Amino acid sequence: MGLVVQKYGGSSVADAEGIKRVAKRIVEAKKNGNQVVVVVSAMGDTTDELIDLAEQVSPMPAGREFDMLLTAGERISMALLAMAIKNLGHEAQSFTGSQAGVITDSVHNKARIIDVTPGRIRTALDEGNIAIVAGFQGVSADKKDITTLGRGGSDTTAVALAAALDAEVCEIYTDVDGVFTADPRVVKKAKKIDWISFEDMLELAASGSKVLLHRCVEYARRYNIPIHVRSSFSGLQGTWVSSEPIGDKKVEQAIISGVAHDTSEAKITVVGVPDKPGEAAAIFRTIADAEINIDMVVQNVSAASTGLTDISFTLPKTEGRKAIDALEKNRSGIGFDSLRYDDQIGKISLVGAGMKTNPGVTAGFFEALSDAGVNIELISTSEIRISVVTRADDVPEAVRAVHTAFGLDSDSDEAVVYGGTGR
Amino acid sequence: MGLVVQKYGGSSVADAEGIKRVAKRIVEAKKNGNQVVVVVSAMGDTTDELIDLAEQVSPMPAGREFDMLLTAGERISMALLAMAIKNLGHEAQSFTGSQAGVITDSVHNKARIIDVTPGRIRTALDEGNIAIVAGFQGVSADKKDITTLGRGGSDTTAVALAAALDAEVCEIYTDVDGVFTADPRVVKKAKKIDWISFEDMLELAASGSKVLLHRCVEYARRYNIPIHVRSSFSGLQGTWVSSEPIGDKKVEQAIISGVAHDTSEAKITVVGVPDKPGEAAAIFRTIADAEINIDMVVQNVSAASTGLTDISFTLPKTEGRKAIDALEKNRSGIGFDSLRYDDQIGKISLVGAGMKTNPGVTAGFFEALSDAGVNIELISTSEIRISVVTRADDVPEAVRAVHTAFGLDSDSDEAVVYGGTGR
Repeated sequence: MGLVVQKYGGSSVADAEGIKRVAKRIVEAKKNGNQVVVVVSAMGDTTDELIDLAEQVSPMPAGREFDMLLTAGERISMALLAMAIKNLGHEAQSFTGSQAGVITDSVHNKARIIDVTPGRIRTALDEGNIAIVAGFQGVSADKKDITTLGRGGSDTTAVALAAALDAEVCEIYTDVDGVFTADPRVVKKAKKIDWISFEDMLELAASGSKVLLHRCVEYARRYNIPIHVRSSFSGLQGTWVSSEPIGDKKVEQAIISGVAHDTSEAKITVVGVPDKPGEAAAIFRTIADAEINIDMVVQNVSAASTGLTDISFTLPKTEGRKAIDALEKNRSGIGFDSLRYDDQIGKISLVGAGMKTNPGVTAGFFEALSDAGVNIELISTSEIRISVVTRADDVPEAVRAVHTAFGLDSDSDEAVVYGGTGR
Repeated sequence: MGLVVQKYGGSSVADAEGIKRVAKRIVEAKKNGNQVVVVVSAMGDTTDELIDLAEQVSPMPAGREFDMLLTAGERISMALLAMAIKNLGHEAQSFTGSQAGVITDSVHNKARIIDVTPGRIRTALDEGNIAIVAGFQGVSADKKDITTLGRGGSDTTAVALAAALDAEVCEIYTDVDGVFTADPRVVKKAKKIDWISFEDMLELAASGSKVLLHRCVEYARRYNIPIHVRSSFSGLQGTWVSSEPIGDKKVEQAIISGVAHDTSEAKITVVGVPDKPGEAAAIFRTIADAEINIDMVVQNVSAASTGLTDISFTLPKTEGRKAIDALEKNRSGIGFDSLRYDDQIGKISLVGAGMKTNPGVTAGFFEALSDAGVNIELISTSEIRISVVTRADDVPEAVRAVHTAFGLDSDSDEAVVYGGTGR
């Protein structure tokens, strides 16, 4: 008898019908002889509604209370799911993050899991129950306050529980059939990936693929927990994410896993920076002190005539204002001429561990973009990824061109429904 | 510096505006030099919406999960209230029933408080915080499961915390100005009661007055916690409920506290019961085994010719079907001719400790009803209460007649808005 952790996102439990459908699927897994632990997100728009309420009473909702508020969402969905399972004649018990032993640090709104002590879950399973656990939440080790894990927190909860319970697999149920070679909304011929390595999945997640978040994949890789991303609306096999191909998926790894894109970032160029040691450090210390995460960083060669250079970096659009303010405030300390802000950019990334040993990939990537008439503004590469920044308008065409050039197009013309994973 | 426990019902925190209004009032109490603990119910219709969801996924929602679900309501309101207070520049922390140390038995959906260990609340207060506590909920002593306290649970939470923290007063904020000598929707000239003893308040609550529930008053009496029932919409003094009149309310106790009525009950008459020992016991053992609470019980003198008698009792209409079924099932064991069920009845009660030493009260009560042309079907009395059952249609007229006859009418013609207290 195996132990399976299943995670259902908000879109899978958006209403009573969805909850009943998910309950049936859970009971099936139980009937197949598994011990089943289910991690569930808040129903549909619940979280947005709670955030809206919070903003009505306070323009800057405080961390601790904001977490207390948001965790009500999972409390509702998990209790309803347990009821729906009982109604099918099976035993189920719901547990808050705290009850499930999800111990975090004290950073409200984006806490990190520091330990999982699932004693009550073990007991519930040993007594023959299906255990339903609230995703996205935990309890702080020091103050015993309720915390939330931030975006993608429910996926992380599921993987962390799977690791602590030594589960065979962590199944992430969502509203798409799996991870695709590109966003099917942009590339009609995108193919579902049957298996992908943790490393490639990490790069895809970092490059804009929204099916799994970086943090959750990182956690799964550290504890070597296979993830199976699949649709809660169909019975199809989805995408396996693991260190080695599983079962009949023992195929040679593809050179390229997929093409990801991201239009949620902006670019800041710091113009006229003296080309001397310590300048880049001064800029990025300023940004770090403002608690802003940046993505790509590119420094051009300085013009010999002036001794000045430009440094560009990308960051989430939502952090743009804050970054500009922080840099302006420290202008004299850093010493630069001006700042340029551009939020009409997009990033296209090609990901695949196979490119390490295939020197033609980089060239083929640039050729495909050139053939499509797409101008490249920034380039950044890792061993298994190439990313470029282009105009935002060029992104769909660029993604399609690269997808075709690397032979990723599917033969089927079937349309794929694609959406977010909730939290 | 005193310690005050304030409780706000669902109608007081029905929306963001209500929450902000309540936050201001709480901050005022704090500014007046008090330590403030606030118990809050779920917002407006939240609980009904959650119950509705539960019924959609399961026709018979299970106890443990149902409690987990419902407690999400207070989690939302308390977090929002804490945010709203912080937004006014004061420190506030919210606590679930479990965090506040509200320990209960394991009877889900109607748990009883067995202990209160408010260590975290004390700490929060000592650090200068306003403590916000979720009403209506606790944690079971044995299994550490979340429980709810049933109807009126938030009032009970407030009184229990007031007792555990040795508060000066437990203020119950609601949408009416206090406890009235009769329901102002029925009796326009009903007066607000300035002070009422625990005993009289218990009888009023048992007789249909909905402002405070029996259980909460009972708890307050046991620990001698003064309750101040008042409106969250006005700054007026409300009704003090305590063992002795407080401050300038040291007046001689009125003979009559008020007139209560109740049209939520039905009457069952067991017809043709052999007039011999053990018959009543057989009937009420049957009812008790079906877990039905009954109210009045009346047995008429038996007719000498037949040796048979009739036994009538009243019970909540919602339990009527269950009681009839239970009795029919045990018809041969009990031995009766037939059952009569009547849900068109009403109960009028006159309450006042003064009636013990005023023999004319009973006579005056019946005369008032007679003068109003109201027929009496059942009579039941205690030392400080007389209750009669009449036709439901006669109730408003009967209440007004009794209210006037005992000199309770107010001189003012001002209309009073009157409603329930949430839970």
